[in-house]
Amino acid sequence: MSPEPYFPVEPWCVREPSVELDRLGHTESIFALANGHLGLRGNLDEGEPYALPGTYLNSFYELRPLPYAEAGYGYPESGQTIVNVTNGKVMRLLVDDEPFDPRYGELCAHERVLDLRSGTLSRSVDWVSPAGQRVRIRTVRLVSFTQRSIAAIRYEVEPIDEPARLILQSELVANEDQPSIGDDPRVAAVLASPLQAEEHHHSVHSALLVHVTRRSGLRIAAGMDHVIESTERIAVTTESHPDWARTTITCEMRPGQVLRVVKFLGYGWSSQRSRPALRDQVHAALAAARFTGWDGLVAAQREYLDRFWDNADVHIDGDPELQQAARFALFHVLQSGARAERRPIAAKGLTGTGYDGHTFWDSEMFALPVLTYTLPAAAGEVLRWRHATVDLARERAQVLGLRGAAFPWRTIRGHECSGYWPASTAAFHVSVGVADATLRYYHATGDEAFMREAGVELLVETARLWRSLGHHDRHGRFHLDGVTGPDEYSALGDDNVYTNLMAARNLAAAASLAPRYPEVMARLGVDDEEAATWRDAAATMYVPFDDDLGVHPQHESFTRYQEFDFAAIDPEDYPLLLHVPYFQLYRTQVVKQADLVLAMHWRGDGFTAEQKARNFAYYEARTVRDSSLSAATQAVVAAEVGHLDLAHDYLAEAALVDLRDVHRNTRDGIHIGAAAGTWLALVAGFGGLRDHDGRLAFAPRLPSRIDRIEFSIRWRGLRLRVTVSPDEATYTLRDGGTDVQLELTHHGEAIVVRVGQPVSRPIPPLPPAGPTPHQPPGRAPLRRA
Amino acid sequence: MSPEPYFPVEPWCVREPSVELDRLGHTESIFALANGHLGLRGNLDEGEPYALPGTYLNSFYELRPLPYAEAGYGYPESGQTIVNVTNGKVMRLLVDDEPFDPRYGELCAHERVLDLRSGTLSRSVDWVSPAGQRVRIRTVRLVSFTQRSIAAIRYEVEPIDEPARLILQSELVANEDQPSIGDDPRVAAVLASPLQAEEHHHSVHSALLVHVTRRSGLRIAAGMDHVIESTERIAVTTESHPDWARTTITCEMRPGQVLRVVKFLGYGWSSQRSRPALRDQVHAALAAARFTGWDGLVAAQREYLDRFWDNADVHIDGDPELQQAARFALFHVLQSGARAERRPIAAKGLTGTGYDGHTFWDSEMFALPVLTYTLPAAAGEVLRWRHATVDLARERAQVLGLRGAAFPWRTIRGHECSGYWPASTAAFHVSVGVADATLRYYHATGDEAFMREAGVELLVETARLWRSLGHHDRHGRFHLDGVTGPDEYSALGDDNVYTNLMAARNLAAAASLAPRYPEVMARLGVDDEEAATWRDAAATMYVPFDDDLGVHPQHESFTRYQEFDFAAIDPEDYPLLLHVPYFQLYRTQVVKQADLVLAMHWRGDGFTAEQKARNFAYYEARTVRDSSLSAATQAVVAAEVGHLDLAHDYLAEAALVDLRDVHRNTRDGIHIGAAAGTWLALVAGFGGLRDHDGRLAFAPRLPSRIDRIEFSIRWRGLRLRVTVSPDEATYTLRDGGTDVQLELTHHGEAIVVRVGQPVSRPIPPLPPAGPTPHQPPGRAPLRRA
Repeated sequence: MSPEPYFPVEPWCVREPSVELDRLGHTESIFALANGHLGLRGNLDEGEPYALPGTYLNSFYELRPLPYAEAGYGYPESGQTIVNVTNGKVMRLLVDDEPFDPRYGELCAHERVLDLRSGTLSRSVDWVSPAGQRVRIRTVRLVSFTQRSIAAIRYEVEPIDEPARLILQSELVANEDQPSIGDDPRVAAVLASPLQAEEHHHSVHSALLVHVTRRSGLRIAAGMDHVIESTERIAVTTESHPDWARTTITCEMRPGQVLRVVKFLGYGWSSQRSRPALRDQVHAALAAARFTGWDGLVAAQREYLDRFWDNADVHIDGDPELQQAARFALFHVLQSGARAERRPIAAKGLTGTGYDGHTFWDSEMFALPVLTYTLPAAAGEVLRWRHATVDLARERAQVLGLRGAAFPWRTIRGHECSGYWPASTAAFHVSVGVADATLRYYHATGDEAFMREAGVELLVETARLWRSLGHHDRHGRFHLDGVTGPDEYSALGDDNVYTNLMAARNLAAAASLAPRYPEVMARLGVDDEEAATWRDAAATMYVPFDDDLGVHPQHESFTRYQEFDFAAIDPEDYPLLLHVPYFQLYRTQVVKQADLVLAMHWRGDGFTAEQKARNFAYYEARTVRDSSLSAATQAVVAAEVGHLDLAHDYLAEAALVDLRDVHRNTRDGIHIGAAAGTWLALVAGFGGLRDHDGRLAFAPRLPSRIDRIEFSIRWRGLRLRVTVSPDEATYTLRDGGTDVQLELTHHGEAIVVRVGQPVSRPIPPLPPAGPTPHQPPGRAPLRRA
Repeated sequence: MSPEPYFPVEPWCVREPSVELDRLGHTESIFALANGHLGLRGNLDEGEPYALPGTYLNSFYELRPLPYAEAGYGYPESGQTIVNVTNGKVMRLLVDDEPFDPRYGELCAHERVLDLRSGTLSRSVDWVSPAGQRVRIRTVRLVSFTQRSIAAIRYEVEPIDEPARLILQSELVANEDQPSIGDDPRVAAVLASPLQAEEHHHSVHSALLVHVTRRSGLRIAAGMDHVIESTERIAVTTESHPDWARTTITCEMRPGQVLRVVKFLGYGWSSQRSRPALRDQVHAALAAARFTGWDGLVAAQREYLDRFWDNADVHIDGDPELQQAARFALFHVLQSGARAERRPIAAKGLTGTGYDGHTFWDSEMFALPVLTYTLPAAAGEVLRWRHATVDLARERAQVLGLRGAAFPWRTIRGHECSGYWPASTAAFHVSVGVADATLRYYHATGDEAFMREAGVELLVETARLWRSLGHHDRHGRFHLDGVTGPDEYSALGDDNVYTNLMAARNLAAAASLAPRYPEVMARLGVDDEEAATWRDAAATMYVPFDDDLGVHPQHESFTRYQEFDFAAIDPEDYPLLLHVPYFQLYRTQVVKQADLVLAMHWRGDGFTAEQKARNFAYYEARTVRDSSLSAATQAVVAAEVGHLDLAHDYLAEAALVDLRDVHRNTRDGIHIGAAAGTWLALVAGFGGLRDHDGRLAFAPRLPSRIDRIEFSIRWRGLRLRVTVSPDEATYTLRDGGTDVQLELTHHGEAIVVRVGQPVSRPIPPLPPAGPTPHQPPGRAPLRRA
């Protein structure tokens, strides 16, 4: 859990001073660029070597069969897998006929820099070919936040010592070879060559390929265009074929002369639009990009990010590595959702093929809270995507014998794509996540149009789900039996505390909204009697408690289960799911990821302070953090119960999960949930932000090694900046008129903040922390203090 | 649940007066012949039409991949599937060059008779060819109980009105076309042509084929030989090829002349023996059969069955259809295990490919109790097979993080072959079944050699399993959490009452045997401390009880769960598992098959009479009997709690499950568990046999429509015959010397029975029956009274 740092610490950059080829999988993900619509892995410009070549379009997927050794009613028959689409990153250089390849010749220098403020990936190479010809190469790559279909690459090459003949081959390549995926030959067959060529065109310096997927029937057009600068004579030719196109640029340069090529890449896809429409759409996008030009794209990118960071940055004094990691994490959250526009945020964003490119519950419970408070429009778009799938969720509920909408555990397009129902179908909390994110977005923005068009329906259909999923026992308590909570080392428990408390909030909110949206309620067929059943279910929701131990069981009986035998586990046996059968994990007291502790974060209003302290210590001793989602939540609650340095440790673990490749799987893509959790750990942890029922509350408090943090949140068109020092917190309101005021609480004290009138309050002394928490052997986080 | 009768009622035969070709799947199973080693489906002699051609050798299987949409640690990678081996049943007849085929020409008569006393399948056909040539065909088929590698067919044909040229083609055919199995093309590919030819031979009237399976590497030799009787000139030729061999017999017959051919079939297989060894083995078996001759085989078959029925028959007065069905059922139980000889009893015996030919827990809990009391040596052989797999079961336990032996949910060779662990791996009760059958066999036979060589180890390793599977809670109660009981509509429950009570018996028995087998215990590494932990776990085993309702929950919390909404279920939606997701079945109060009620049968000593009555009524209302294993157990307990006519109804349902094709799947093979349950329902139900801790107890009592039953059980070399009339029961002891006596109880009264001194006792009046049971809507059994 404590791999060594790899990247030097810098506040606004991630720099790789020299390339390590056996680490390409890691760096391809770290250096991935995306805008929520289009994503390019940080593959080397020349295409190889690579760990995983990757170009992704949000929601562009192929269907694949889901096989079962023993079938069952309601099992999904096919899954959806993100497709590596036409690769336009490839720019091969030949120097006097020798291909530039970092594996050959002498690599005198090779640096890559991801700049979090400019939103570009730069590369600087100094290479001597096997024949002794030395060249300097500089490339800059961006995926535009302002022109969402566009990526661009500026490629510069110059000879150093001698004149050289330079040939640059700029390509579009469909159906690239991919490393083997899994052991099912049928799946491999489907995904090995997913794109069927439909048409291809080229001009002298541009080309365009159109393909369609075999089974899902999605059409994609990818085009490239080039602007070439050179003082010398240049020959340019382009050819196109069904699966590839190539622009070849040939020239001879002397030392000091630079060949500079800007490559614009345009992408478009659709499940409905015709070939001509899509072809024209990409052509138009390329024309616009060319019109804007390289410098214009770079400037717009910078401007977009300046605005973003002004809203979203968390400034940290005292832990520079954490500062860098927090910004890197937030940058990737932005990249995953900025321009998703009614498409989901996948668990790996658009940075890799991990989890088949699926979106999970952490979209709503990790990424969306961050976006809601930093880039609210993007959060709204993702929720509108969820709403666009509500018919599928209603169908799924019906298959399951339930009412309302049961959102899928994992999906791209909205259909359930999981082949193991105890960990998926039964994990109904994905639907409380949808409801909670909807409420949060509504409270933070007051977006009534959203509520009328999407939000109310999401809350109503999820409330209906809980009402039909649960039932009253003979004593009138409402139960949700046989469900799987967030912790994936338990399954099919009765009365999972997280699910029950969150569902109760969902039910109560839906009922309380009924009088405010009579037209929507009428359209959805909600009457007063139905709303009353929601109020009743919320009021009588059962929450188990272990009186002997004075802690909440994660679900009924959990604390009565056998203790997991940690002593029998080798340090190499983590993650446990690869070495212990589900059978044993489910029936013993071992926790993969925060579950009861997650409930204490998002439904902290359902616990006393003493319960929180005791619960936290209890679950600390049983939580192994085999999920990257866990550490951030543990940080939030550790901070609340007074274990501030432990919170700092967990925060750092979440923040560094990809930079340090903590789980050794960053090659599959960036952990967007953990990245978002980093912001949450800072803002909800050390900032103490809570937003129960739409009321802003802060309880800021710093750990010993952090001197100051400063963060902002957006709230109904305002920006609230919170500056926290060891002794004091200052609340500053921006953007509103002088008559605007914001009510919030600081450590329980109600205060009012007005624009231009910062309010400072002392940090109260730390009350006695609860029991000292201990982690399972070997599972303590790396100490930072 | 109440299909019409198909076969006329006769006491010792199952007769099909005329063939219904769309019912071939059903009759192929009904008329299957087997001896526990070799099984032939009741396919028509001429090979087609067929529903499923089938020739099976016990434990001859092929491996097939088990695919998973999402893999998990400990999932079995490959399954085992029974193989349709070389078919020697085929005897094609041509009459004046026209093939005899029931689909062509005119079928004037076609009768098939399974004779339960002679152990033969006879067929009598009167057919007019499309050209108008009339012939009579009579065939008799047997699978020898006395020569286990041998089957034989006598084929007789005679022209009726005109002379005819008759050509009989007698064949061996490997890799027959099979109907499609499932929707996984890879599995179909593996099993479409499972046998690789190794060698083939022939003489004038015999042939032999040797094959080996591709993946499992099992070798099979199949041979045929013929004895031909005819008064006229006959031409005989034989040819052989890698996948088939054919003996052609040609003659011309006049009316009144009969061509009579006896075909001997010999089979042998091995995972180890060489090609020559196997070839010679089959040749020797055929030589022996030819030496015995057709008449000798028929006579030996009859003698074997006379002895069996003398031990095993249950005579029933008052319900002739039930009498027939009970004998038919018992005959198929015999066929499944008579000569298994250290091989398992599959759920479908050797009558079809249902469940891939796997053996399940019902082998030990249904088939073995019957065999233990009727053919104890056969029961011992099956238990020795289990013992032969104990190393695999130990390995499986280790993979699961447990000690002892975890026997597989479904297997042929001993490896776990299930692809859905919540219903398989977690169903640890398969191991209590092994232990219970071991104890029963030991008590009934006193077979000390078996105990030393196998039985003690089975009891010790299962006791170790329970000890490591369970744990004490903070109050000292011992729990088995997260296990699946017999009811497949629940899974992963805590403290399944059946499993807990049976495991407690297992633990206590293992502990109590320790002092009696010190050498075995030393070899197994059992010391006094370990045995003490078993005693303790047995003594503190937790059994949940619902005080409010005064009933036992099937597992913890079951009676608190939501009631299943039977009103929402269409009668066509049974079995529910095909129309309702597991998710809903597991978390609601719906029961596929007796589970708590099964506990009340086999661990009736763990319940009071009042509890039994209340429990029975409670579970009756929630049990849908989607498993054929359920009705028999419900009959046993219904009889005990005084609902005798209901017991009669359930008994009939179990007995008729295949004759009437109640579950519409008899085409896949005979339900051996239900067949065995028929005997149990009679003997443990109306006879009231209980054998807790090796003490014989009877509590006979008849339902209103049955006038008398008479059954026998074997007990330590003795035979006890029990004759029950409405008012009186008589116990008669046979086989022992006059000094031998047997202690038992009759309705709780201890009595002693001596050879030659029958004891009669009155049946006490029926105490008030408990609450009147009601079944879910539409799920009441067909009434017989």
